[in-house]
Amino acid sequence: MLEQKPILIRSGTLVTMNPRREVLEADLLIAGGRITQIAKSISPRGDEEIIEAKGRWVIPGLIQAHTHLCQALFRGQADDMLLLDWLKKRIWPLEAAHSPESLRRSAQVGLLEMQLSGTTSILDMGTIHHSHILFEEAERSGMRYWGGKCLMDLKGSSGLLYQERGESLKESEDLIKTWHGKSERLSYAIAPRFAVSCSEKLLKEVVALQHKHSVLVHTHASESLEEIALIRKRTGKTNVDYLQSLGLLGPQTVIVHGVHLTAKELRAMVKTQTPLVHCPSSNLKLASGIAPIEHYRQQGLVLGLGSDGAPCNNSMDPFIEMRLAALIQKPKFGPQALPARYALEMATLGGAQLLGRSHDLGSLEEGKMADVVVVDRSHPSVATVECPYSALVYSCLGRDVEHVFIGGQAVVLDKTHQVYNQQQVIAEAQESLTQLRRRAFTQ
Amino acid sequence: MLEQKPILIRSGTLVTMNPRREVLEADLLIAGGRITQIAKSISPRGDEEIIEAKGRWVIPGLIQAHTHLCQALFRGQADDMLLLDWLKKRIWPLEAAHSPESLRRSAQVGLLEMQLSGTTSILDMGTIHHSHILFEEAERSGMRYWGGKCLMDLKGSSGLLYQERGESLKESEDLIKTWHGKSERLSYAIAPRFAVSCSEKLLKEVVALQHKHSVLVHTHASESLEEIALIRKRTGKTNVDYLQSLGLLGPQTVIVHGVHLTAKELRAMVKTQTPLVHCPSSNLKLASGIAPIEHYRQQGLVLGLGSDGAPCNNSMDPFIEMRLAALIQKPKFGPQALPARYALEMATLGGAQLLGRSHDLGSLEEGKMADVVVVDRSHPSVATVECPYSALVYSCLGRDVEHVFIGGQAVVLDKTHQVYNQQQVIAEAQESLTQLRRRAFTQ
Repeated sequence: MLEQKPILIRSGTLVTMNPRREVLEADLLIAGGRITQIAKSISPRGDEEIIEAKGRWVIPGLIQAHTHLCQALFRGQADDMLLLDWLKKRIWPLEAAHSPESLRRSAQVGLLEMQLSGTTSILDMGTIHHSHILFEEAERSGMRYWGGKCLMDLKGSSGLLYQERGESLKESEDLIKTWHGKSERLSYAIAPRFAVSCSEKLLKEVVALQHKHSVLVHTHASESLEEIALIRKRTGKTNVDYLQSLGLLGPQTVIVHGVHLTAKELRAMVKTQTPLVHCPSSNLKLASGIAPIEHYRQQGLVLGLGSDGAPCNNSMDPFIEMRLAALIQKPKFGPQALPARYALEMATLGGAQLLGRSHDLGSLEEGKMADVVVVDRSHPSVATVECPYSALVYSCLGRDVEHVFIGGQAVVLDKTHQVYNQQQVIAEAQESLTQLRRRAFTQ
Repeated sequence: MLEQKPILIRSGTLVTMNPRREVLEADLLIAGGRITQIAKSISPRGDEEIIEAKGRWVIPGLIQAHTHLCQALFRGQADDMLLLDWLKKRIWPLEAAHSPESLRRSAQVGLLEMQLSGTTSILDMGTIHHSHILFEEAERSGMRYWGGKCLMDLKGSSGLLYQERGESLKESEDLIKTWHGKSERLSYAIAPRFAVSCSEKLLKEVVALQHKHSVLVHTHASESLEEIALIRKRTGKTNVDYLQSLGLLGPQTVIVHGVHLTAKELRAMVKTQTPLVHCPSSNLKLASGIAPIEHYRQQGLVLGLGSDGAPCNNSMDPFIEMRLAALIQKPKFGPQALPARYALEMATLGGAQLLGRSHDLGSLEEGKMADVVVVDRSHPSVATVECPYSALVYSCLGRDVEHVFIGGQAVVLDKTHQVYNQQQVIAEAQESLTQLRRRAFTQ
């Protein structure tokens, strides 16, 4: 990382998410990639970049704990379909047709969108091939990135994405050695896609590899009833129950979706401190269901939030996910369920805990990494709302994000990405998409 | 209305919503407030304003068929509460405390937000007093406006907003005489709030007044189970059933919400061609439930879309409502339910039909009123999506709206409101809110 000038964010309204949940009218100083000082008024020493944040919300960087950068290019290519059809007829053929170039452009457009919308960390699931490209682009963009290649070794249930077990594990380990901890912002997460397309042997070896390198495992489970029925037929167990029987549960295994957890599965996840990522747009769009997150929360499950891949969403804006997460619990659990503040917690502290980084991510506190987002409050949807939680969750959108700092690096300034040329990224993405669709769907 | 120069919108992608649902790369000419020509290439005569729309979506103006301008100032003041509590403890005291000035500022901030987000018509429910102010601001803003003062004549169930029947009907009739058809864009809609706070006698006289002046009636019904129970206790009937027994159903009575319609009520509404307005954000936020709109649609109900008032929402962006409407039907009815195109239909053709204006609103066709919205496609959330319905419903947001024309009047150009000074409107709204809260909640 290049040596950066200190940054002084002045006169903002800091929604700290610190243990006392303080909201402060204060200055915030960033140096060496960390928040070094928060105080009523910090006198500049003269070498700082000054960011005027008066009348703006200053919030911890948002953490999206489940994404698929490799699918960003597929947005709008697979609407109104059920999960397994959606995967087999559209997503897997498109993933399989990725060239290194189209994968790079997919990653760029996804990173661009998410960073412009205030996302500073993602837990990403790659596809089978060319996985180093995702790390290269994550590194280039400045994103705080956890990711890994997909593992799918059951021929009948993996379509064109099938890869032999030994080969896929070897590639995973090679990627771990190259990328895990290469910089402070890059980490590996082993990614068996879902139990449907993974052999038992593969999943057991995933556990061994996880323990060997102490990395996250990241997998989908209990998303749709059809998927759960397939696992039950093969193993006699429900989905998370099956993962537990293989030794997969624990604080380093991130389960995504959990729409239909049994009471037993929920207890097991709470007991083993296995975190869950909620993806409300995706669960609605693929008709998977509404996960009873309010109930999970009351039971003490560690919860994060994610937008999932662009084609099941179709907007990777963490503000939209926060709003939706808060809204969809209420018809079932009442209007006080999943209040605005907790939706913001899921996207900040929840994500940080889930990634094992509560100590240095998820809130604005001295000593923590400087993942900081400045949000414009001037839109008439937002301007008259005083409560920051209400404003940020129910009224703000990613389009209101003005500046984004990750580890002190200015990734977005004045709504403009500092690494990517937006017009060029989009033009190249469009070109790649045309070719990719030709490769995937015509012969 | 001032005489306007013709406007030529050039080289856009027209999502016409015409009977063939054509999507055309074409020019669109506006003159005398109407769309006069749509053609591949229109040669300017020289006196037109030229709007370059290359690479943008050009869509019919969006119709929000249920709003409360009078509540725009209350955004974020009443989160996480149940409908009847929300009304009695927060909304009604705030409405009752409105001064003419605070009501004007509430209307301004709401109109500003909705027009910036691509809304060109609203069906609005006022409060009890100062109703002329809503019409004055609607007229000033250029909004195509249906609205009317609220009627609430049952003392025990109307709180501070109670008004004696004769007086409220007389005021309604006076407003009809002054405002209904005053300009091509202003229409009256009689607005008994909901059966809970209206006497049977009042509702019957509403029907008489409606017939006398041939205006719309606009009322809430079947929003929450608690409300339905109150009506059943008082009348022995379910909510819409009760309205029908009073002669209220018909194509000129707009029912809002209908979350919990019985099969009999649904049949009655379809048979009488009584339209329904769906407000998805509001129904979720107030924990009212998820209206089975896909089922209603299949049964042939006329359906429109609305954001409802700002405090139950908290963002009056019609794009958010379209997205949410499409998403929340899917867990119950499957991923093909309420497809993107139909969500856009609800907000355009559905709204037009509901307002009795199918002949001249709701689509881009020669001869129709020039309510036209130009949507920027450059955001990375949107740019690579080719299908306009997918892009507009699942990926675009009100923040992407670039230009808005209502009856040929440029209300928004380059994301800037042409009538209101945004900073001033917001500053004055903030000031009014502080005073309003003091009046409402302290003595």
